[in-house]
Amino acid sequence: MAETTTKANIGVVGLAVMGSNLARNLASREGNTVAVFNRSYEKTETLTSEHPEAGFIPATTYAEFAESLTTPRTAIIMVQAGRGTDAVIDELTKVFEPGDIIVDGGNALFTDTIRREKAVRETGINFVGAGISGGEEGALNGPSIMPGGSAEAWETLGPILKSIAAVAEGEPCVTHVGTDGAGHFVKMIHNGIEYADMQLIAEAYDLIRRGTNKSPAEIADIFAEWNKGELESYLIEITAEVLRQVDAETGNPLVDVILDQAGAKGTGAWTVQTALDLGIPVSGIAEAVFARSLSSKPAQRAASSDLPGPSEAWTVNDPDGFVEDVRRALYASKIIAYSQGFDEIVAGAEQYGWDIKKGDIAKIWRGGCIIRAQFLNRITEAYDENPGLVALLTAPYFREALEGTQEAWRRVVIAAAQGGIPSPAFSSSLAYYDGLRADRLPAALIQGQRDFFGAHTYKRVDRDGTFHTLWSGDRSEIEAVASH
Amino acid sequence: MAETTTKANIGVVGLAVMGSNLARNLASREGNTVAVFNRSYEKTETLTSEHPEAGFIPATTYAEFAESLTTPRTAIIMVQAGRGTDAVIDELTKVFEPGDIIVDGGNALFTDTIRREKAVRETGINFVGAGISGGEEGALNGPSIMPGGSAEAWETLGPILKSIAAVAEGEPCVTHVGTDGAGHFVKMIHNGIEYADMQLIAEAYDLIRRGTNKSPAEIADIFAEWNKGELESYLIEITAEVLRQVDAETGNPLVDVILDQAGAKGTGAWTVQTALDLGIPVSGIAEAVFARSLSSKPAQRAASSDLPGPSEAWTVNDPDGFVEDVRRALYASKIIAYSQGFDEIVAGAEQYGWDIKKGDIAKIWRGGCIIRAQFLNRITEAYDENPGLVALLTAPYFREALEGTQEAWRRVVIAAAQGGIPSPAFSSSLAYYDGLRADRLPAALIQGQRDFFGAHTYKRVDRDGTFHTLWSGDRSEIEAVASH
Repeated sequence: MAETTTKANIGVVGLAVMGSNLARNLASREGNTVAVFNRSYEKTETLTSEHPEAGFIPATTYAEFAESLTTPRTAIIMVQAGRGTDAVIDELTKVFEPGDIIVDGGNALFTDTIRREKAVRETGINFVGAGISGGEEGALNGPSIMPGGSAEAWETLGPILKSIAAVAEGEPCVTHVGTDGAGHFVKMIHNGIEYADMQLIAEAYDLIRRGTNKSPAEIADIFAEWNKGELESYLIEITAEVLRQVDAETGNPLVDVILDQAGAKGTGAWTVQTALDLGIPVSGIAEAVFARSLSSKPAQRAASSDLPGPSEAWTVNDPDGFVEDVRRALYASKIIAYSQGFDEIVAGAEQYGWDIKKGDIAKIWRGGCIIRAQFLNRITEAYDENPGLVALLTAPYFREALEGTQEAWRRVVIAAAQGGIPSPAFSSSLAYYDGLRADRLPAALIQGQRDFFGAHTYKRVDRDGTFHTLWSGDRSEIEAVASH
Repeated sequence: MAETTTKANIGVVGLAVMGSNLARNLASREGNTVAVFNRSYEKTETLTSEHPEAGFIPATTYAEFAESLTTPRTAIIMVQAGRGTDAVIDELTKVFEPGDIIVDGGNALFTDTIRREKAVRETGINFVGAGISGGEEGALNGPSIMPGGSAEAWETLGPILKSIAAVAEGEPCVTHVGTDGAGHFVKMIHNGIEYADMQLIAEAYDLIRRGTNKSPAEIADIFAEWNKGELESYLIEITAEVLRQVDAETGNPLVDVILDQAGAKGTGAWTVQTALDLGIPVSGIAEAVFARSLSSKPAQRAASSDLPGPSEAWTVNDPDGFVEDVRRALYASKIIAYSQGFDEIVAGAEQYGWDIKKGDIAKIWRGGCIIRAQFLNRITEAYDENPGLVALLTAPYFREALEGTQEAWRRVVIAAAQGGIPSPAFSSSLAYYDGLRADRLPAALIQGQRDFFGAHTYKRVDRDGTFHTLWSGDRSEIEAVASH
């Protein structure tokens, strides 16, 4: 029997904005034919009729969807993370066959992806959790893609994802991150860094505005200027755009019209929660997440608005010098945020047995995603030069950058404390930096306290072993095994 | 048949140090007879033979243990949190009857306690998760006890727990916190606050030492002096003890001999992870947890030790004034830590349906536990005066305390930044304070960025509704529903 119907080499399930855009992106690349399916057929119909150029193959049922795909079948799920994803996976595993590939392109928690990969693998079908960053526009024109899953799945999937990914300096922004949940893990860290980066930019803006009385439009010019230098990045670029925007209704800067309560979708919190499990201090990311939750407590803020602040009015004597200080503080703090994020990647890879190439992660973040920045080339270089680098901020390039910024950074943190301007991410990053640098930390006192009240024991600087002082006894020291 | 054997009104399962001490505490109180059981009988034998005065009733099997208890049987499990707890619960439910009471006195995660309470309740047996604070000495002489579980169980259990709890100002440090996991939740928050308190003390010590070159013994005197004022607390008291301790081997202050890598048992991390789920900014606690994990990264610290610091040597001109500033900064930051901790209690109570009396929690923390302090009376008063208080730091007493400390607090944060002394908890608490006080936060800019790259929408200050600017279009504003 001659088969005349065209089949698709890739399918998309879930046709909300992200799914539709990703499907259109796929269809626009040579060699791809795209099958599309949505739980309610209405969306499928709208998409196919609005985009005849895409040549979509619409399906009304999962069976029809499977039938329309060449083998090994490859389908990308683009539904809201959570139970919806499990439901779609259930349906697809019913109609797919061993060797086929199911890709979850949503923002799943990586531990869910590990669980799903394990379950789906038992059917012989491949399951790939793929982080996709870049929002709606990225999905349409080229996102940064962070797929996990098996090497076998990557063989089929790799060329397809390369065809739709953003391109940075000639290279597609996608790589096989590692097995099972590695892709979603790295996407989570991407988002955590994004939280920190946005909070740092927000603090920089706030300090300049309150310190120099410049207008949002003037500060937009400053950010646009910064975007030509070492801070060059998508977030700095769009900050200038947002600050320049004027509200048509009131004639005021839009940023003054927007309610100052920041929302969150949870991936920042996941990054911090996971870091706590892994024992990695990601204080900059945590402060960014907490700054958003603090902003969204209107009752507490109202009750606190007349709490006492600095008695002397805060003035900046040299506005241009201050702006340059803030720029340097932003750069230094940004280095800390990335260093902390990469520490978490290293710890996660070790914990979950992923072979993650850190330099490649920085590379695929250079385009398509929200934190895309020139700066990422420096991270790739740092890990290329020294794959065993124990902390990003100790690489020669970043060390030099910190050398050139740390005095300014201190001045900015001091100005914030003097002026009563909340700068949790700037000051936390500096405290982290000074903590890492410290020859001795008062953690020794904490160990002494813990030994005193809980017999938690301590180690000594001068010889091996575990010790306990008989605090309630004669206060002599005994060798001990770590207690309960 | 005449029953001549004495029965016990309370039993303890698990006879490591905490369990043994709690059993001895119970046995020492009038009216209690205590049955004891341990998986290996050896420990049971040791305990009973070493403490004949206790009149323990030893059991060799769970059945014998159950047999030795009057009904309703009441047993406190004192084993390491985790699977061990589940195993003991399984055994006890086999030999106990409906109406009996199983108490988990370990440091369980409150969500485990919720799960266990639900499962055990189906057998008709009561399950009570009870946080017990005060370490080994507290267990023996009077801990602070935070029981959850049903009101029915509290009727039997309450008098027994009251008999062994610490007493503060005539009141036993125990109250029925709320149903199911409420007790372990509140114990978790206690530990989170303890982390913050210890980190703040450690920073205070470090700043004074590095700023004034005073010796640990001299700083011990300062802490002893502080312990007579508004900072009066167990942790300040033992800090003086630890700082005064001299290492017999080297003749050096013990704090200089102890390795400066702080350990952790996980409850601080739980507090932060839970706060992230609840959307509560507990930045001071988070910085304390992260400071410990940073201290325990020797390779990173070694690689960072020559990173550049302040170019000018840091000197304190007025040592006495500086010490007083640090004292005030410590008090202010401590208020923030407690305020954040109580915010989390409020949010947890709302999320899990617990009727927690906040003033009573502060009361039962006045004795027996690690964070016991005079200060807690002020918290009880604040919540008694205004049970609906939206944030502890806005209560009149604390407002006044902040009035008297915030300028000094700023000077200390400034000194730390100037001197390159890591003070993450001091500076984070100040940033939190200034954030709550702020009329406007740059969260508005973050909302603008989120709307730009992700169409996440924003609200306006001047009218209801949800809005989106068509950033890729003509940049007009449209009313929108919150996107995916």
